[in-house]
Amino acid sequence: MQNTKVITNLSTPPADATGETLAAFLDTAPAIDLAAWLQTLPGSEMWRHLAALPLARRTKVFASLPPETQADLARAISPDSLAEIITWMDADDRADLFNDLTPTEQRQLTQNLAEEERNDIRRLSAHAEGTAGAIMTSDYATLDAGMTTLQAIAALRHQASDKETIYRSFILDHRQRLIGTLRLHELLLAADDRLVTEIMDHAPISVPVDMDQEGVARAIARYDVLALPVVDAEGRLLGIVTHDDAADAIEAETTEDFQKISTVLPFTQSLRKAGIGVLYSRRIVWLALLVFGNLFSGAGIAYFEDTILAYVSLVFFLPLLIDSSGNAGSQSATLMVRALATGDVALKDWQNLIGRELVVAAALGATMALVVLPLGALRGGSEIALVVGVTMFVLVIIGSLVGMSLPFLLSRLRLDPATASGPLVTTISDAVGVVVYFLVATLVLN
Amino acid sequence: MQNTKVITNLSTPPADATGETLAAFLDTAPAIDLAAWLQTLPGSEMWRHLAALPLARRTKVFASLPPETQADLARAISPDSLAEIITWMDADDRADLFNDLTPTEQRQLTQNLAEEERNDIRRLSAHAEGTAGAIMTSDYATLDAGMTTLQAIAALRHQASDKETIYRSFILDHRQRLIGTLRLHELLLAADDRLVTEIMDHAPISVPVDMDQEGVARAIARYDVLALPVVDAEGRLLGIVTHDDAADAIEAETTEDFQKISTVLPFTQSLRKAGIGVLYSRRIVWLALLVFGNLFSGAGIAYFEDTILAYVSLVFFLPLLIDSSGNAGSQSATLMVRALATGDVALKDWQNLIGRELVVAAALGATMALVVLPLGALRGGSEIALVVGVTMFVLVIIGSLVGMSLPFLLSRLRLDPATASGPLVTTISDAVGVVVYFLVATLVLN
Repeated sequence: MQNTKVITNLSTPPADATGETLAAFLDTAPAIDLAAWLQTLPGSEMWRHLAALPLARRTKVFASLPPETQADLARAISPDSLAEIITWMDADDRADLFNDLTPTEQRQLTQNLAEEERNDIRRLSAHAEGTAGAIMTSDYATLDAGMTTLQAIAALRHQASDKETIYRSFILDHRQRLIGTLRLHELLLAADDRLVTEIMDHAPISVPVDMDQEGVARAIARYDVLALPVVDAEGRLLGIVTHDDAADAIEAETTEDFQKISTVLPFTQSLRKAGIGVLYSRRIVWLALLVFGNLFSGAGIAYFEDTILAYVSLVFFLPLLIDSSGNAGSQSATLMVRALATGDVALKDWQNLIGRELVVAAALGATMALVVLPLGALRGGSEIALVVGVTMFVLVIIGSLVGMSLPFLLSRLRLDPATASGPLVTTISDAVGVVVYFLVATLVLN
Repeated sequence: MQNTKVITNLSTPPADATGETLAAFLDTAPAIDLAAWLQTLPGSEMWRHLAALPLARRTKVFASLPPETQADLARAISPDSLAEIITWMDADDRADLFNDLTPTEQRQLTQNLAEEERNDIRRLSAHAEGTAGAIMTSDYATLDAGMTTLQAIAALRHQASDKETIYRSFILDHRQRLIGTLRLHELLLAADDRLVTEIMDHAPISVPVDMDQEGVARAIARYDVLALPVVDAEGRLLGIVTHDDAADAIEAETTEDFQKISTVLPFTQSLRKAGIGVLYSRRIVWLALLVFGNLFSGAGIAYFEDTILAYVSLVFFLPLLIDSSGNAGSQSATLMVRALATGDVALKDWQNLIGRELVVAAALGATMALVVLPLGALRGGSEIALVVGVTMFVLVIIGSLVGMSLPFLLSRLRLDPATASGPLVTTISDAVGVVVYFLVATLVLN
């Protein structure tokens, strides 16, 4: 009978289980699924089940809980229980937990640890958030250059239970500088008496410890490695970033981009669990700021009040025109923000791209103008049609150019290009649009 | 002297190299970097360099070229050269290339292949795009349940050069059904005489062949595996999806989400290289469609023309109000689209979330109303202030609720929730907004 767990749906934690089914579940379920189920229980229940697990499994399940839950548990359980888990945890996971505690809690925690763990936590947690240093682990496998294949495999067997991965190992010189890297695959295929130094890669790819985590993740994806070594300015190995942590970092950064691009100040909690206070405070800032941006459109309208009174049918087309301008700009901005984030486009490409954008925008604007001309004629006659058509053409071009350039400008000013959101572009092109519209109207109709 | 290649910038292909430097580069550079440099050359030059490489390296570099370039080269080189490369290529890469050729070219290609490769291509390329079947490879390592650890390692050594990975192997029964999986790590740590069946995972996690690739990638990330087996309805192993292909699929899907959410019809080329025709055709459709959506706002304005003539200062606030409504809706929609994509939120959560959204939106709307009240009073007196304030409150709530619900509705109708873009939400709330605004105005001012 076939036993494979065919996954079709990840979002449902397992239903309530009791008795023998529960025992089997606690024993054999993947750690992440057990963690998901535990989160449906109150905190004390959660710990009761965790405490009953063997230490290695308990640690793995604990580390699979969301950061806030780990921190809550850390505060609730006895210092000895916590020290046990912390000692067993992967180096990168415990540094993350450490950074979520208050300074007092951090002191209490480190007091109970052996010196090796204490120093390791201090070193890892000291790195700036969002960099290679912040997501790396110090649990990497090392080999001596002078080892034979046979000795190397034995060494890896010996280190295996403590290391994040033994599939890639690192060879250092006497000053801890990285001089080579070796895949287990190559080790297995080599004859027993070959030396590590003969089969290792002598020019391994590495990243600097202060590189942004998105760049690290892209390097891992580009070079298709399981782990990338992180070095300091002298080339000394400080840690490794594994592909799974890089993928998690990418997902978090992408979610942040989505938030920024819709004018929500970034927050890391799950949307499903976020509280009313968080959602309110992250959303109100830009909403309110953009109101002031919109006052410029209003001022433009106030200036042209007489034109409006004379030709009320102009107001009919106002939302249509400024929306089209904003939509076109929003398209350009979003495409460019994403392309900058994936490395598809670089800052130096701006000049080539602006020329192309001009042509595309002109084509779009001309098409849109043709679409509205008959509507303008129907509603207000040929003069209105001309005003609306010309304005549409100009506004789509202006909106597109603004939308395309804003991410570059923000990047140049060392700000996050994702702040160039649709709504920001829309607000800018609204103000411009109102002025252009009524100017054209005044010119044509008077 | 330290030789590690510290990566700081991935977007620059290596500069022109000549003579000895070029020879060293062609010999030792990572395949992906060599591919990047080759793309700066004309096609014939590209092939000249490729043909001079040893077959294994040539194939790896070839497979690192973008799909369009691979297809172009495939058409240009001799059938024998192509057959050579295809035979050496990884199973998933060659199925992708196969699917990029015309039926005639596909026939020509398979004629020149050995039966094993021909069948493999046919099987893999038959799967629907965007599913596990489309991104899986058939190059997986297998072991017999009855093997000892020693025999198993020898077997993996033997298979190593043909398999995508030997770090995870799969154990099948006599009917090709998946009954177990084993990590090389565990194999290395086990005593020589243990049997595979004693140390393997008897309930391995797998995915159905028709599962969407985003789900597969999420499963790989969730369970932190290097590769996930893909099975058919009877549990027979069809292939494996490796973490790197899953990560690539995720990146492509995310880019598609960004495009959709900004009303651009999805396209897969690099933004930097996309032609004017592609950009025009992908952007014009929604821009034009939304014009018709905007006509509803216009109709609303036409209906209330008399009110506008009587109270022209109302027009001053029109962009501000409908923009705020659209921004609030855009925030809700984008947050929800992303949460649905990452699995943070599921369809069944709608009821809980709409209640929370109502409260958040009311808070946002009240704040925004307070912001515009003084502006309204300044511009047109206390009655106008009341109209503007009440409208702002109502519109922010309506916009938010529309924005939050649209992704769920689209998902329910089995459409991509990412189509619930900012501009679509904005257009809907514009139409509603205009009617509400002038209704309130008519009520208060008359």
